[in-house]
Amino acid sequence: MTSPADHAHHAGIDTDADTSLLAPGWAGSPAASATGDRAHLRALLDAEAALTRAQAGLGLAPAEAARAVTDAADPARFDVRSLAERARSGGNPVIPLVADLTEAVGAEYGPYVHRGATSQDIMDSATMLVAARTLDLLLPDLARTERALAGLAAEHRDTAMPGRTLTQHAVPTTFGLKAAGWRTLVLDARDRIAAVRDALPAQLGGAAGTLAAFEAYGATDPTALPAAYARELGLRAPLLPWHTLRTPVADLAGCLAFTAGALGKVAEDVLTLSRTEIAEVSEGSGGGSSAMPHKANPVRSTLIAAAARRAPQLAATLYGALAAGDERPAGAWHAEWEPLRELLRLVGGAVRDAAELTEGLRVRPDAMRAHLDLTHGLIVSERLSAALAPVLGRARAKELLTELARRTYAEDRSLGELLAEVPELKGLDLATLTDPARYTGSAGALTDRALERR
Amino acid sequence: MTSPADHAHHAGIDTDADTSLLAPGWAGSPAASATGDRAHLRALLDAEAALTRAQAGLGLAPAEAARAVTDAADPARFDVRSLAERARSGGNPVIPLVADLTEAVGAEYGPYVHRGATSQDIMDSATMLVAARTLDLLLPDLARTERALAGLAAEHRDTAMPGRTLTQHAVPTTFGLKAAGWRTLVLDARDRIAAVRDALPAQLGGAAGTLAAFEAYGATDPTALPAAYARELGLRAPLLPWHTLRTPVADLAGCLAFTAGALGKVAEDVLTLSRTEIAEVSEGSGGGSSAMPHKANPVRSTLIAAAARRAPQLAATLYGALAAGDERPAGAWHAEWEPLRELLRLVGGAVRDAAELTEGLRVRPDAMRAHLDLTHGLIVSERLSAALAPVLGRARAKELLTELARRTYAEDRSLGELLAEVPELKGLDLATLTDPARYTGSAGALTDRALERR
Amino acid sequence: MTSPADHAHHAGIDTDADTSLLAPGWAGSPAASATGDRAHLRALLDAEAALTRAQAGLGLAPAEAARAVTDAADPARFDVRSLAERARSGGNPVIPLVADLTEAVGAEYGPYVHRGATSQDIMDSATMLVAARTLDLLLPDLARTERALAGLAAEHRDTAMPGRTLTQHAVPTTFGLKAAGWRTLVLDARDRIAAVRDALPAQLGGAAGTLAAFEAYGATDPTALPAAYARELGLRAPLLPWHTLRTPVADLAGCLAFTAGALGKVAEDVLTLSRTEIAEVSEGSGGGSSAMPHKANPVRSTLIAAAARRAPQLAATLYGALAAGDERPAGAWHAEWEPLRELLRLVGGAVRDAAELTEGLRVRPDAMRAHLDLTHGLIVSERLSAALAPVLGRARAKELLTELARRTYAEDRSLGELLAEVPELKGLDLATLTDPARYTGSAGALTDRALERR
Amino acid sequence: MTSPADHAHHAGIDTDADTSLLAPGWAGSPAASATGDRAHLRALLDAEAALTRAQAGLGLAPAEAARAVTDAADPARFDVRSLAERARSGGNPVIPLVADLTEAVGAEYGPYVHRGATSQDIMDSATMLVAARTLDLLLPDLARTERALAGLAAEHRDTAMPGRTLTQHAVPTTFGLKAAGWRTLVLDARDRIAAVRDALPAQLGGAAGTLAAFEAYGATDPTALPAAYARELGLRAPLLPWHTLRTPVADLAGCLAFTAGALGKVAEDVLTLSRTEIAEVSEGSGGGSSAMPHKANPVRSTLIAAAARRAPQLAATLYGALAAGDERPAGAWHAEWEPLRELLRLVGGAVRDAAELTEGLRVRPDAMRAHLDLTHGLIVSERLSAALAPVLGRARAKELLTELARRTYAEDRSLGELLAEVPELKGLDLATLTDPARYTGSAGALTDRALERR
Repeated sequence: MTSPADHAHHAGIDTDADTSLLAPGWAGSPAASATGDRAHLRALLDAEAALTRAQAGLGLAPAEAARAVTDAADPARFDVRSLAERARSGGNPVIPLVADLTEAVGAEYGPYVHRGATSQDIMDSATMLVAARTLDLLLPDLARTERALAGLAAEHRDTAMPGRTLTQHAVPTTFGLKAAGWRTLVLDARDRIAAVRDALPAQLGGAAGTLAAFEAYGATDPTALPAAYARELGLRAPLLPWHTLRTPVADLAGCLAFTAGALGKVAEDVLTLSRTEIAEVSEGSGGGSSAMPHKANPVRSTLIAAAARRAPQLAATLYGALAAGDERPAGAWHAEWEPLRELLRLVGGAVRDAAELTEGLRVRPDAMRAHLDLTHGLIVSERLSAALAPVLGRARAKELLTELARRTYAEDRSLGELLAEVPELKGLDLATLTDPARYTGSAGALTDRALERR
Repeated sequence: MTSPADHAHHAGIDTDADTSLLAPGWAGSPAASATGDRAHLRALLDAEAALTRAQAGLGLAPAEAARAVTDAADPARFDVRSLAERARSGGNPVIPLVADLTEAVGAEYGPYVHRGATSQDIMDSATMLVAARTLDLLLPDLARTERALAGLAAEHRDTAMPGRTLTQHAVPTTFGLKAAGWRTLVLDARDRIAAVRDALPAQLGGAAGTLAAFEAYGATDPTALPAAYARELGLRAPLLPWHTLRTPVADLAGCLAFTAGALGKVAEDVLTLSRTEIAEVSEGSGGGSSAMPHKANPVRSTLIAAAARRAPQLAATLYGALAAGDERPAGAWHAEWEPLRELLRLVGGAVRDAAELTEGLRVRPDAMRAHLDLTHGLIVSERLSAALAPVLGRARAKELLTELARRTYAEDRSLGELLAEVPELKGLDLATLTDPARYTGSAGALTDRALERR
Repeated sequence: MTSPADHAHHAGIDTDADTSLLAPGWAGSPAASATGDRAHLRALLDAEAALTRAQAGLGLAPAEAARAVTDAADPARFDVRSLAERARSGGNPVIPLVADLTEAVGAEYGPYVHRGATSQDIMDSATMLVAARTLDLLLPDLARTERALAGLAAEHRDTAMPGRTLTQHAVPTTFGLKAAGWRTLVLDARDRIAAVRDALPAQLGGAAGTLAAFEAYGATDPTALPAAYARELGLRAPLLPWHTLRTPVADLAGCLAFTAGALGKVAEDVLTLSRTEIAEVSEGSGGGSSAMPHKANPVRSTLIAAAARRAPQLAATLYGALAAGDERPAGAWHAEWEPLRELLRLVGGAVRDAAELTEGLRVRPDAMRAHLDLTHGLIVSERLSAALAPVLGRARAKELLTELARRTYAEDRSLGELLAEVPELKGLDLATLTDPARYTGSAGALTDRALERR
Repeated sequence: MTSPADHAHHAGIDTDADTSLLAPGWAGSPAASATGDRAHLRALLDAEAALTRAQAGLGLAPAEAARAVTDAADPARFDVRSLAERARSGGNPVIPLVADLTEAVGAEYGPYVHRGATSQDIMDSATMLVAARTLDLLLPDLARTERALAGLAAEHRDTAMPGRTLTQHAVPTTFGLKAAGWRTLVLDARDRIAAVRDALPAQLGGAAGTLAAFEAYGATDPTALPAAYARELGLRAPLLPWHTLRTPVADLAGCLAFTAGALGKVAEDVLTLSRTEIAEVSEGSGGGSSAMPHKANPVRSTLIAAAARRAPQLAATLYGALAAGDERPAGAWHAEWEPLRELLRLVGGAVRDAAELTEGLRVRPDAMRAHLDLTHGLIVSERLSAALAPVLGRARAKELLTELARRTYAEDRSLGELLAEVPELKGLDLATLTDPARYTGSAGALTDRALERR
């Protein structure tokens, strides 16, 4: 199984191997290990071994064969690089893998390897295993993120800050409500991932999805085999072989693109709030710069934002692969492999970064409070419109506010000061009405409500 | 509200209006009407009227105001083109609409129009109304499609045909199983659409999502308002204002891209099976050609396939909009409007086409049967490998089949004939073993099982 | 040609017509008119009339027929809505259009309408006409944008401002260099659009691209016809019929996605620099808010940014359509029509907005200057690293700067002040070395060089 | 530089490394080696060494420093995996690389490593090197493909076959014209790649693109440095630093997406023509199947088709990255790295497959000829419409053809036979008129013309 050329690889000079040099977002993450070529090899071997075991369980193969295949299906015995290169001629890695595995099992039980299956049965089942294992790693990091955000939301339930719309200060909000909103998205992501994870099916259909070969090899009711196979793999039993009914892949695309976008929203906000001029939050451990000692870059947010920019198009490729022709397609299926892996990794990395980001986030309530005054008090103009109308009449109230808005900037005075000079308003509690920190509406109540969601 | 220039539009010379000339896929469909500018205008007005009614219901506005706004919110009284052009300065059509509606309501109750709301509250709620109304129109056509496919699957449960993989004949399958697979995808689409449709929420948050303005206008507990508003609209009450928590839009993207892809699979297969050389199925009413009287093009499939090519990228734009900054974003939100509408339309048209396609599909079992023989019997070589091994030994069986496969083509004889000349095989029921129609495995049982799903 | 139902449309009650209500980015723009259904109808009729004229020019049709078709090809005589709906059965609008045009031309010359052509000849040629006409409208707005940016770059050649990287202040730059960079992108867009526009070809091939029908109708050398046809249309003569060789469409996709992205860069920067906390620039006429009188939203940038988010995915659909099967494809072609139109419009609107944005942009050099001090002088730490090393030794210099960086924040003093207290540095011109406005490197020279490009 | 953990990697147990197991399309290709992590490492080191050499060339660094850095910049001395993992904290691999390289160079000349540069200068320059080297490998394979197609076009200039539109036989064409069309697309791809390759620029700007640090380190005119740097790298000198002016990346996206689509068209056609029922062409070495000895799958076309499905969305991500904020962006840049590499690889693999596919393609003129008769002669109905009209009058001709079209199928007779029974047509040369092989129009002349293009 190992050619001389492979020795070079094994000696560490695998000049073409990728080790995530271009992927700081997921390098070294659990998702990286769970989606690497070796993890795929392991899943492919697991899928082959499970097939023989499932057949043995139904009396279609000797128990010894199942044991022999399971024993031989040890990733350390196979040469990934060689498999990758030999995959070219048939277009998928299962063909050479079956050859190597059959040889490894030996003459007696070799014939029970892959019996009745098609390459796609193994490849799809392995892909589902890889997806399941990776999603199982993502969920804890999502949970960490959710908990960190719950903590931030509770702690800053009443921390007023400028609400920003179309980049401009609008009315006050709270950092608690913002964090609660982020958490809501994270919970939405968790729910979508968990539902998809739970539904991931094994694949078994044979050459054209009719299970015919299993019958040819002696099964009286081959339709029992997929369920037995799924049990061996810890996956769901499929209703039908899904070689060209790609719901599981599309569902993965959807929940992963959703998660990347949800975390992307958090990153986008952190990037804005971290700007030198705003500095209302900062990452716990900013990335440095060799030349500029003062810099602390929001690197976690940056890498999450990068993932969020890529995920939708990777998902689009997978949704596009739904239109897969015939009983097994010429291209649509092959176009799924790398984008799905990439999505799993990217999101796996982004979730790790999101956990670190939210757990380490530093919040500066004083900066938030200070910024509420940047518009000379105009950040509460909406409230004053409502409050002045009953006193002055609606038209006069609007006229007055427009005039004072102009003057706040021209004279560099606050709206509160100017309003205090208006005789008709003497009876109003202007101090309260113009205090941005007291115009946060239902932010607190909404935060409480959002935190009740588990 | 109507300028002289608009008279020209009203006289039918609206030179810029689009009337689906480039969209045969959805022109004239229910989804077209449900997603047109006028339908959006109606939804925007519905959203404004519901807001005043919800406030009146909670004692925050006079009942007369609610009536006045509801009466004035008649789409026929508004000029869409003018609204569209005046939308430029503020960047959304709600701003001019509020001006026109306030004027239409009159001086007394005008102040109750849009009170406390932000443009995005109305725009998002209207978008959800449009989505809900359009999905309600899609579901019946999906149901028609599902029923037609159930009929085809049942009728052709045992109609054998070539199973094709990577474009080549592999082993036999049945048209029943193929139709059952198509139906499974349609049911998956239905389930996803129905779940998303059921969860579509109203939007209400005010300028920055804190509901503060409603308090300024007198509400003691503004958090009750979104639920009341949602009831008026027949939508779900949101947990939080979702101005930048875009789960509902992403979920729509996902279920619509899924549906387009699911129907795209059906179309892809029909296009292949309709090819002049294959002609195993044909559309009930093929499209004609002016120059070539003999042509009957698979137009319904073509248009569905076109939709399936576009939907994933439209969905990608919507997933990308999840990373929406601040309390209301500068661009991410605006980038949603047209792609979401386009997705609703495209899928609406595709579902209509799918219903017509499947209800009218002509199936030619004789052509299917004839094609089973195109490979001189080699389409059952998998079965013969299994059957001959016990008789000849595995190695000799393989050697023999490879030799005979070569000879079938060279001598233009069938595999069955050649096998009959092999003395050792006298004891086998070669007629059965080489009959492609009897090598459909569990296709029938799988079809039955799939049809049990409702 | 006009049914009773159409009268309703003509009376302005075309309930499904779209009038850009969801498209403030391009509503009312020249590109909107140039890409509307009526513009497409006009182009389709131009394409039909040019075909008869080209045939007449080569003696293949009577001159009277060319005149008759040209006269009849008046958009005002055709009902777009009816054409759109009748396009369903054959899958494209040319089929019903040919019927209506033939009837309008009358019995004598009707047979010369569309003679020898296929629908795709007319549709593609019309699409190229629409593209050419729209690009011709975009180029002047790009030129306005480029001139405005050249003016800004020259005026602010030496206006220092913070250079920002990964959202943090890095080292100073100038607004002139920033504007010069924006202009460079605009020029790149212009060059790409101009090159593509210049190469747009007519389409003529007949049913399967062999020009055979023209021979059947009497042409001795049909290969002369496409060139004659292209001349009539003002388009390039194609080397081959390109029914499934979609280079022109892919090239349009590329230059339009590029332009959207180039303008998107400008918008992105303006959105950031417009933030309430930064306010170094503002749009000339910000968009208002009904509820918040103080707001001036960067609406032009917002709409450009929205276009930039959508264009890449529209282009992806068009690049995907390159894989068009057979002599004319079943779906890939149909999937081009709306995305290409949408790209033309989106970019047309974005270019209009970019011209307004850049011509009206207000720049605040004082704010820029003030922000240079936000980091207590650390924005020039890179320079000081270089300057102090020869004096203090590299290690000690680094150590000192790190220490002082800490102290600037702790003591709220400037780096310059702290350095002045270090005895070894007495001989240095610290005033110059710590002046951010004097650490703009080659920004001025680079700006000059960039402005030389025409 | 090498930790104990890294020894494990070097011993071949790099459990996370990817060795193209999921990428049969490009595994083992020249493009794979040219784009792997090690190739990127080499390019990063080349970029660092060139920078010191360029500075030495302008007298800004000692010649010995340039030699020392160049000597130390040996990829074999660096640990890719370690760099990848240490890239996390700062978000890019240049930061740890500079540390390792500086250490490798030693105390004396270490300070000249990376002097004045920013990480992005090195990363972008290295990316351009990788792109240039990969494109240089693609062009020869494109040339092989073009030559093979020219040979097929010339050989089959007059090989008639059915022209297919919307999946149905339309009128005859030739395989020569089809191959000439494919070649035209390949030449279009070549021209676009060559133009982009020739324009790839070096990147040099320093921290915020002002070249200020180079001045701080002693350059009197730092604007000379980028040109000198570009010369060292064999790349173009940039007009401006392009940290956020991403024209080169967008141009790469465009030409690569184009190439993938162009080859995708070829693959799409080969897949169709290879179908068991059509079999007009076949791949030289079809991929096998373990279970079905008769199968010869069109694997090269399948893998090309898979690449064509993915490339547009990868390009979309890159076009989307044009909207890169500030002087260096937080996410847009990081989102480019992997998609650009993936595009280069995918297209590199597709071009290799295209060369093999076209050089090995087997063409079956007899099958093509036979298929021309599948429609009972109706494939020339267009021609007969033209020929019969002068004899019978237009209306009667159409009526007759419609009637005979019906009868050909009903009576299973050819159109020619039936026409021969019509007395009025005695004078016509029906044998010629109904011979599909003589109704290929200008296919030959068009092929000749297309082949003149070099």
